[in-house]
Amino acid sequence: MIRVGIVGATGYSGVELIRLLANHPHVAVHRLYSSSAEGEALAGVFPHLHQVQLPSLEAIDPQQMADDNDLIFLATPAGISAKLTPQLVNRTRVIDLSGDLRLKSAQLYQQWYKKEPAEGGLLEEAVYGLPEWNRQKIASARLIANPGCYPTASLLGLLPLAETGLADMRSWIIDAKSGVSGAGRSVSLGVHFSEVNESVSAYKVGKHQHTPEIEQELSKISGEEALIQFTPHLIPMTRGILVTAYGRLRSSIDAEQLQALYEKAYEQEPFVRVRKPGSHPRTKEVYGSNYCDIAVHHDPRTDRVIILSVIDNVMKGAAGQAVQNMNLMFGFAETAGLTQLPVFP
Amino acid sequence: MIRVGIVGATGYSGVELIRLLANHPHVAVHRLYSSSAEGEALAGVFPHLHQVQLPSLEAIDPQQMADDNDLIFLATPAGISAKLTPQLVNRTRVIDLSGDLRLKSAQLYQQWYKKEPAEGGLLEEAVYGLPEWNRQKIASARLIANPGCYPTASLLGLLPLAETGLADMRSWIIDAKSGVSGAGRSVSLGVHFSEVNESVSAYKVGKHQHTPEIEQELSKISGEEALIQFTPHLIPMTRGILVTAYGRLRSSIDAEQLQALYEKAYEQEPFVRVRKPGSHPRTKEVYGSNYCDIAVHHDPRTDRVIILSVIDNVMKGAAGQAVQNMNLMFGFAETAGLTQLPVFP
Amino acid sequence: MIRVGIVGATGYSGVELIRLLANHPHVAVHRLYSSSAEGEALAGVFPHLHQVQLPSLEAIDPQQMADDNDLIFLATPAGISAKLTPQLVNRTRVIDLSGDLRLKSAQLYQQWYKKEPAEGGLLEEAVYGLPEWNRQKIASARLIANPGCYPTASLLGLLPLAETGLADMRSWIIDAKSGVSGAGRSVSLGVHFSEVNESVSAYKVGKHQHTPEIEQELSKISGEEALIQFTPHLIPMTRGILVTAYGRLRSSIDAEQLQALYEKAYEQEPFVRVRKPGSHPRTKEVYGSNYCDIAVHHDPRTDRVIILSVIDNVMKGAAGQAVQNMNLMFGFAETAGLTQLPVFP
Amino acid sequence: MIRVGIVGATGYSGVELIRLLANHPHVAVHRLYSSSAEGEALAGVFPHLHQVQLPSLEAIDPQQMADDNDLIFLATPAGISAKLTPQLVNRTRVIDLSGDLRLKSAQLYQQWYKKEPAEGGLLEEAVYGLPEWNRQKIASARLIANPGCYPTASLLGLLPLAETGLADMRSWIIDAKSGVSGAGRSVSLGVHFSEVNESVSAYKVGKHQHTPEIEQELSKISGEEALIQFTPHLIPMTRGILVTAYGRLRSSIDAEQLQALYEKAYEQEPFVRVRKPGSHPRTKEVYGSNYCDIAVHHDPRTDRVIILSVIDNVMKGAAGQAVQNMNLMFGFAETAGLTQLPVFP
Repeated sequence: MIRVGIVGATGYSGVELIRLLANHPHVAVHRLYSSSAEGEALAGVFPHLHQVQLPSLEAIDPQQMADDNDLIFLATPAGISAKLTPQLVNRTRVIDLSGDLRLKSAQLYQQWYKKEPAEGGLLEEAVYGLPEWNRQKIASARLIANPGCYPTASLLGLLPLAETGLADMRSWIIDAKSGVSGAGRSVSLGVHFSEVNESVSAYKVGKHQHTPEIEQELSKISGEEALIQFTPHLIPMTRGILVTAYGRLRSSIDAEQLQALYEKAYEQEPFVRVRKPGSHPRTKEVYGSNYCDIAVHHDPRTDRVIILSVIDNVMKGAAGQAVQNMNLMFGFAETAGLTQLPVFP
Repeated sequence: MIRVGIVGATGYSGVELIRLLANHPHVAVHRLYSSSAEGEALAGVFPHLHQVQLPSLEAIDPQQMADDNDLIFLATPAGISAKLTPQLVNRTRVIDLSGDLRLKSAQLYQQWYKKEPAEGGLLEEAVYGLPEWNRQKIASARLIANPGCYPTASLLGLLPLAETGLADMRSWIIDAKSGVSGAGRSVSLGVHFSEVNESVSAYKVGKHQHTPEIEQELSKISGEEALIQFTPHLIPMTRGILVTAYGRLRSSIDAEQLQALYEKAYEQEPFVRVRKPGSHPRTKEVYGSNYCDIAVHHDPRTDRVIILSVIDNVMKGAAGQAVQNMNLMFGFAETAGLTQLPVFP
Repeated sequence: MIRVGIVGATGYSGVELIRLLANHPHVAVHRLYSSSAEGEALAGVFPHLHQVQLPSLEAIDPQQMADDNDLIFLATPAGISAKLTPQLVNRTRVIDLSGDLRLKSAQLYQQWYKKEPAEGGLLEEAVYGLPEWNRQKIASARLIANPGCYPTASLLGLLPLAETGLADMRSWIIDAKSGVSGAGRSVSLGVHFSEVNESVSAYKVGKHQHTPEIEQELSKISGEEALIQFTPHLIPMTRGILVTAYGRLRSSIDAEQLQALYEKAYEQEPFVRVRKPGSHPRTKEVYGSNYCDIAVHHDPRTDRVIILSVIDNVMKGAAGQAVQNMNLMFGFAETAGLTQLPVFP
Repeated sequence: MIRVGIVGATGYSGVELIRLLANHPHVAVHRLYSSSAEGEALAGVFPHLHQVQLPSLEAIDPQQMADDNDLIFLATPAGISAKLTPQLVNRTRVIDLSGDLRLKSAQLYQQWYKKEPAEGGLLEEAVYGLPEWNRQKIASARLIANPGCYPTASLLGLLPLAETGLADMRSWIIDAKSGVSGAGRSVSLGVHFSEVNESVSAYKVGKHQHTPEIEQELSKISGEEALIQFTPHLIPMTRGILVTAYGRLRSSIDAEQLQALYEKAYEQEPFVRVRKPGSHPRTKEVYGSNYCDIAVHHDPRTDRVIILSVIDNVMKGAAGQAVQNMNLMFGFAETAGLTQLPVFP
């Protein structure tokens, strides 16, 4: 059993880590940290954890944290892990669920996040934690930048094509739809039930900070400079992301070849399911699970490829993927603690 | 007061017509027709109309219908009005809310609707009832093809650009999000609450019958052959459509010019509101009203135009627009019966 | 045309008043007041009012407010109108939508609201604005205490029985279910979409401040001291209240007599609809309208009466009822501005 | 590993059994049966099971079913198991999730279910599968009547009081609120998203078939004849039941004693959590888990006890409880396969 600590246990990603790790065969939830609720029992914040055996919330003390845990999950808002990680990473392993360490370019971080980037070579060192495309590096890393929710759904959908060089990496339009939990637990008018319910809207058109993250990874795998159009939308539901991605191929390919390409790319993957031709995956079909379901369409009228990709944003888009990364780092079975089937309906 | 008859009064478009016409200053809801519930009081089908004074449901008899009404609304499923309209149109005026008479090409109708097209020159005669772009013809028509919900939101969003020739009419990708009421009142697993709630999915990728309707009107106004990518999505809400449309311009134009173009195009329109630069309209902001709210974005990174357009699918996407068309046909104030503000929240 | 001013125009009751009054035949929305957003256009707060002609938000100045308006609506949180009303009521008419002036007993107000009660005889003067049971007094009042949302649904459901003396006024259990808009527009974890969606809970068991208001009016009409059990619940929807009330009769009465009693009690009422025997009214069936729909059940197994009563909490539970009161005060048709049918679906 | 067969695998309870059993340490999902989809892969019905290793659907053949399985779950509509069980129970063990075998009285079954009751002593033999109150009998049973969803939440909430004789068993009013999944997967207007969303209503007032089931068990444990008022309500959410129960005590008891009574009653129970005094449990706090959370309130004004009880209707209200019963019948750890924490948010 390894000892893990969770920083930001009172947020949605933090509490999902607890849900997963409480049933993990090789992990003890050893310490919970919170800057806002130290000293409290977690069940005081989350009554759904009433009578569940969990450590109380402690204040954040990097040195103590590093001493007490074999692994620290940072489930914190942007800007925190850039400061905390340097004090942790020489002494324990770290998986950062925030966006602080995902971009290799400090300049891009500053531009899109409007915050100070991490220093000391951390951006270079952090391994991008998308296991399906980075498994080897993750296994030997001491610092993981856990991918964003939108990038996870987008990249798993596009990378098989990116890898082949078949698709024009400047043609992709990624229209994404997300449940409200992606906005976190902080209160604002933007997450007020009466404002969100019975409504759908786009937000941050052309300006969402996951844009450069998707471009960075598409460029890395394709070997060409990707330029994407990314538009997130807020949907009146709690969990789930659907990405609808539109792109053009350099040379024509028929639907069967496309399907075969995707099936081959993911045939060994435990968490990526390439759905049958003509499918329209629903976010409900991955609810509460670590699956990413993908359907590949080719429209012969327009000669465009349309990729549909769904995840549970709190699972494969955050905590589930973080556990998958942990499993790789510690040599556990990759699916340990992640074998839940989707909660349906 | 004109006498109007509604065929299909037990569907969602039919009952919305009743909601609007019950408060219309120049209209009497004179006759209601239904093939499934003749003889019943409408309040037996719709308890929310308890104690509202309305005629009972009658069987469909085209000759009698034509005699009894100055105008017939056909709020029927596809395939019905192609058969009914020929028996009505020489003797009364008709507004058809179905897709039967929208496509000028019988061959396209057959291909996309998989039904027999209307005969006898009806496709040629029917006037496409999008008042903002067809006001004169509507005013003198005896037969209106009321636009589809997705086409209404899409066309109001794209036609100002189509008209100028600035945009490439083969570049548009229209990613649309709709509430469930757009699927009508028939029961199926696809509208089962437990299957739709907490879920989002695309459907009919590359195959939705509103595709050729949008292309036809874009082509007509732009003078070039439009080819669009249209993807509808089902959202866990009852009413509302958001269209997110992505396109490329032939020559660069800055955001201010774009904004000015749209504001000018619609400055006289009572039901189209061009929102401020940078806006992200929510479907909730037009709920229950006949407004279409539009925001225009230009992404300088990608040099793409992104148009956001929201309507209430039952109102401007169906019954509200039908009433607007009726007002034009009979010389009433165009906003008569349609002055409701959005129900918020 | 009378000139009305609305204080608290940036809340949900305030903006619903604007929706209703914008189409009222005898009213001009003359002034809008807000302590938080003075100087702003209302459309800056509520984009759904974009391009609607409305006055800008002004600071609260009681003397000026009294001079400028024939009627002031106070759509403010508890505690405000107790202070504002004394400065207004000698010079203009006032309809207070808050709970400040509903309880005749200052002591009960203090106990349940934990705030200082209004002074100067205002509690005595204020007329309880439930038109179906207080029409004459409302017509001649200068100060109206507009009923709470839960009391409106509860009282319209119970008063016909209270009036007869048939029911034991200490037997009633009122189990109420409300949409989230009843909590207002302020942000808190309790209205966070991700916390409210897919969930139902009771709140303030035994402690909700509408309890003494319901008891006061039940006692007044029945002539005996009522003691009720009231439990509100939060439902994952925006608008609507359903009251399920359980009580015992003093002497047996059969279902037909009960039904007749209710039909007679409300036969002249424009906004109360007694539904057919055996009905189960849905909140959706009054959505956006000023109706209260009531069904009366008698369970022969238990000899209990069960009353089901539904309203739209923002309409008959707040703004709609306030407009109805205004109509009575100024001698307009009682239904003026309130003829909207429910928005369905 | 025991071999289990599931009849009705294409319904919501059936598919939840599969979710649970797929991760159960001692169980193999050996056979799946369906009358409507024999020969199909289950993933054809439920795409969320794509690539999950499961047997295909087979036709129902009682003899073969008994031979092939150590245990049969009957997740079928009312009326089926009354016919199937006699052919199974002498040769294999059976857990029936329907209402067919819960009532000891054939006459009551006929009256409330309007169907033919089971014959051959099955009603007498079937053990009511509420483990917290029937653990010993379940362990040695070969036939379990798995409790209904409403009875589970109601009985866990009321039985500690029933057992003591403190409460008047003719005083209870049980006002229950349920998500839509409780209605099953069959399509009807009553589960149409556009009709259910943004709405709440009661149904079957005084007539729901779970009424005699609750009364039977309350009577059995209390030793007096219970007579309850039970009203179910439909809530716009997928999963979850909240029971709000109102009753009177024979002699006064203070809130601390009540709390202590409940804490003691359930202190050893793995799935019943007595929440802190003053709590208002939300259905979301048990979502996807087998917990029943209970809060006990005493209102000193009215001297009534109010019990709040929440479950996930598909879990503790159906499939989760069935697995708990199976664990007891086969001597597995009672929590095996049921250790999931609630999915939150």
